[in-house]
Amino acid sequence: MNADQKDDEQEIRELVATWARASGAGDLAAIETLMDDDILFMTAGNEPFGRDAFHQHFENNVKQMQIHVRAEVREVEVREDLAFARTWLEVRITPPKGEPMTRTGYTLSIYRRRPGGRWKLWRDANLV
Amino acid sequence: MNADQKDDEQEIRELVATWARASGAGDLAAIETLMDDDILFMTAGNEPFGRDAFHQHFENNVKQMQIHVRAEVREVEVREDLAFARTWLEVRITPPKGEPMTRTGYTLSIYRRRPGGRWKLWRDANLV
Repeated sequence: MNADQKDDEQEIRELVATWARASGAGDLAAIETLMDDDILFMTAGNEPFGRDAFHQHFENNVKQMQIHVRAEVREVEVREDLAFARTWLEVRITPPKGEPMTRTGYTLSIYRRRPGGRWKLWRDANLV
Repeated sequence: MNADQKDDEQEIRELVATWARASGAGDLAAIETLMDDDILFMTAGNEPFGRDAFHQHFENNVKQMQIHVRAEVREVEVREDLAFARTWLEVRITPPKGEPMTRTGYTLSIYRRRPGGRWKLWRDANLV
């Protein structure tokens, strides 16, 4: 691995950490800076959805809850302008009037770096 | 896209089609030629598992059923020795003494080509 690849890998690990912190803080604007414009989120039982649907869901549901996300990147591979990461997540959710619950699982994600830009999340399969 | 990339993309599309046909035929040996030795299957609610667990599951469960898989590759991107594909699956399953059922959904998969080898499935997140 050369120095550039190490930098890329490090940037992706920081992206994952920033995303987790911003989720905990309810900071949707910060999360949105980490998404490619053409992002697709893949979840079980739903058609893939993009930025707008994520935004709506976050505003309407996620912001009402207390959330704590622990994210551990288990592997990253970078090739040219694409990278993938497998990440283990632990999500603790406390609804406004409910008991806290914890869910764990993995994501498989593809990151993309557009010319002149930074790494962004581009495809995300969430098995949590 | 250059000619090599087109060939790579075509090989990955054929791998997906072959896997679907081999699943329908119960041909585990054929499927296993399409897996990287270091493959990880990611599914909801389970730890990632490799070749051996796939083999056991196929022998103990899948072979007893009639299966028909329709697979449509929705996108493929190749970079050097790694590629990813997003694929839509429709799986019709008829258990030995049960009603047929149909499940649909997406996979997000990473393929890898080792030096001198062919493209193989390496990471597979299955949301079906």
